[in-house]
Amino acid sequence: MERQVPHFREELDALQGRLLEMGGLAEERVRAAIQGLVTRDPALFEKVLLGDEAINQLHIEVDNRCFRLLALHQPMATDLRAIVAAVKINTDLERVGDLAVNIAEAGIRYISHPPVKKLIDIPQMGDIAQSMLRDALDAFVKRDTRLAHQVLNEDDRLDSLKTQVFRDLLTYMLKDQSTVEPSLDLILVSRHLERIGDHATNVAEDVIFMVSALDVRHHPPAPVED
Amino acid sequence: MERQVPHFREELDALQGRLLEMGGLAEERVRAAIQGLVTRDPALFEKVLLGDEAINQLHIEVDNRCFRLLALHQPMATDLRAIVAAVKINTDLERVGDLAVNIAEAGIRYISHPPVKKLIDIPQMGDIAQSMLRDALDAFVKRDTRLAHQVLNEDDRLDSLKTQVFRDLLTYMLKDQSTVEPSLDLILVSRHLERIGDHATNVAEDVIFMVSALDVRHHPPAPVED
Repeated sequence: MERQVPHFREELDALQGRLLEMGGLAEERVRAAIQGLVTRDPALFEKVLLGDEAINQLHIEVDNRCFRLLALHQPMATDLRAIVAAVKINTDLERVGDLAVNIAEAGIRYISHPPVKKLIDIPQMGDIAQSMLRDALDAFVKRDTRLAHQVLNEDDRLDSLKTQVFRDLLTYMLKDQSTVEPSLDLILVSRHLERIGDHATNVAEDVIFMVSALDVRHHPPAPVED
Repeated sequence: MERQVPHFREELDALQGRLLEMGGLAEERVRAAIQGLVTRDPALFEKVLLGDEAINQLHIEVDNRCFRLLALHQPMATDLRAIVAAVKINTDLERVGDLAVNIAEAGIRYISHPPVKKLIDIPQMGDIAQSMLRDALDAFVKRDTRLAHQVLNEDDRLDSLKTQVFRDLLTYMLKDQSTVEPSLDLILVSRHLERIGDHATNVAEDVIFMVSALDVRHHPPAPVED
């Protein structure tokens, strides 16, 4: 069980390499979309809107690699779980790419209005979401459950920033009607970033399941508050 | 290749049965959440908020069944694709359950304000999303790619209703400040329903891939409009 044919290991390494590549692309797109929002630069949004092809191609390639590995090598135990995890992570990363597009679309509408406020919480949400994604993929490649658990905890920060963004913008909308439209777009952006965090969380949960065969889903680590 | 051990077939049937059961539960939860919104009935929201356990248990069970089928039977070709599809569909259905919770949460906030308007488009979106989900699962069990393609087309209707809901509510928000908060919640509900449609679309794409090994993702059937 310990030693497998090198062919399988090489293929698995290549698969992981592709997932890391996808993760890098996804992260870069999220960064560009948020940067576009902060600098009000339509060129950055255009870049995000047009640059979906590379991730979509990788998405198909990774799926095919997973099928090939399952069909030709019939892996067992941890290897099997790693490949099923890769199938799921592949889906999550593709969605992150789509969410970058959604952010860019909201961003284009946003910069057609005067700015509502200096953006502080949203770029911070972007940083957290990106680092969650990076750490979750890192945890996958290194089989590092400690790092994966760290990602799960980060999600709470993202969640409370999202709530803060919402309350903040609601105040603007109630005070000044002209801020309603652009504020709505910022609220949508914060939801998209929250969902990117959710995808990173999914990846982290898959890592924990893969390594320890322990299902942490539906069993939050923190106690429920009254 | 044509004839497999009955054990595998039985297990695959049981797996499909579990997915249908999950789909039924998910659909029921979406219906209850939208019904709560229309009738302004907090008891329906409570029911949705507290009833996540059954889907979450099925989610874990289906995943385990998939692993067992992959590990013990080492299926090939269509069978392999069916099980990988089941892994993905399982994730999609679990998310639909979560989205019903999100709708119920927005609904609780919504009914704490006077109604903004008579709800017509949102219940219609709910109906479409539910029937997309039902059809997609039906297509999975029957290996019916025609029905799966139908689901893909329905998604456009959901999308244009979402845009209509947004424009409609924006008008209310700009006219009357007191509608800002409840309108925001309705906009969020329409986004949650759109995402339920996206999950049904994912299932339909998995069915098409499973049956025909044709990857329809990233290749929309309708021509791009100018």
